[in-house]
Amino acid sequence: MNFPSKLIEDAVNEFSRLPGVGKKTALRFVLHLLKKEQSDVLQLSDAIKRMREEIQYCKICFNISDGEKCSVCSNSRRDERLLCVVESIKDVINIENTNQYNGRYHVLGGVISPIEGIGPEQLHIDQLIDRVKNENVEEVIMALNPTMDGDTTIFFISRKLAESKVRISTLARGVAFGGDLSYVDEFTLARSLQTRRPFESYLSKQ
Amino acid sequence: MNFPSKLIEDAVNEFSRLPGVGKKTALRFVLHLLKKEQSDVLQLSDAIKRMREEIQYCKICFNISDGEKCSVCSNSRRDERLLCVVESIKDVINIENTNQYNGRYHVLGGVISPIEGIGPEQLHIDQLIDRVKNENVEEVIMALNPTMDGDTTIFFISRKLAESKVRISTLARGVAFGGDLSYVDEFTLARSLQTRRPFESYLSKQ
Repeated sequence: MNFPSKLIEDAVNEFSRLPGVGKKTALRFVLHLLKKEQSDVLQLSDAIKRMREEIQYCKICFNISDGEKCSVCSNSRRDERLLCVVESIKDVINIENTNQYNGRYHVLGGVISPIEGIGPEQLHIDQLIDRVKNENVEEVIMALNPTMDGDTTIFFISRKLAESKVRISTLARGVAFGGDLSYVDEFTLARSLQTRRPFESYLSKQ
Repeated sequence: MNFPSKLIEDAVNEFSRLPGVGKKTALRFVLHLLKKEQSDVLQLSDAIKRMREEIQYCKICFNISDGEKCSVCSNSRRDERLLCVVESIKDVINIENTNQYNGRYHVLGGVISPIEGIGPEQLHIDQLIDRVKNENVEEVIMALNPTMDGDTTIFFISRKLAESKVRISTLARGVAFGGDLSYVDEFTLARSLQTRRPFESYLSKQ
């Protein structure tokens, strides 16, 4: 694609590095921005710059944060007995948006993956063990993605935590709300049959 | 959606103002950028800022440009006898990418649209008439979108240009390459039958 201006070309090239954005979409973004007020465009440019330059990671849980401690760790009303272990910041955002969890988090920064060459030492596992030792944690909720690597990581961490008497739990696996049983794979269906629950307990949790 | 950081929230909000980008896609962009090198992210931010601040419009044809005259108008090897009238900058880029056109352009900045309240005085029509009078133009190619408003604009301009002896042409209408006749609307099909061409002339143009 040829562009009548080097400035446009640069902007299109930069936009097209974003995930899922090709040259055509990038050009659409650029032509859209050209029509907008200059102040609006500078706001976008500035938000991107500040986000990358000023962002910090919480010293305790490795969540993204505007300061040294993230908004969850610095909130004294969050239950410090519950610790939810997640893979990435995205999972923190997802769980926060359920409005159902009032404990704290620990962001691993990935999962153990021999294929991708990610070992336990590259993740924040040691820090997790230290937190469980030193903080008042009663239950560690392993909210990792339900994959082979996720399960390996849960197993690895659970062995490391075996000495401490902390309770370890994982997310319930089963059929999703609004799903269709014919599209559920047999492992999930088998597991959800084995771990079936009395209907009353389901109602009382609502 | 709640975000653990105000910086992230601002960036997501700004990204989600782009066309076709919702909050989830915006968050994906942001998390992608967080993982990238700081210099790469600053390049994106900078390209957006410079594009909007430094972009100019060509004084002759109203195409986007890095200087007072765009790369087409300042190129002496372009045929000044051909003038292609288009709606927007995007159309210039599209036609340039065919590598088949060696004339110059004139960007109207839209088409006459009574419904959207766009009259001829809001477009660069007067400048087009002046150019045809003062420059060495022999043919004006009306490459507007094949819509009702596009046709109205072509009609309006052709009447304004009637005094000068310039030739006025429009893009050929017909079935598209690789299309399926059963999906072509009847007007297009009828038109392409009426304006059918000898097969030899088609071959010789290849």
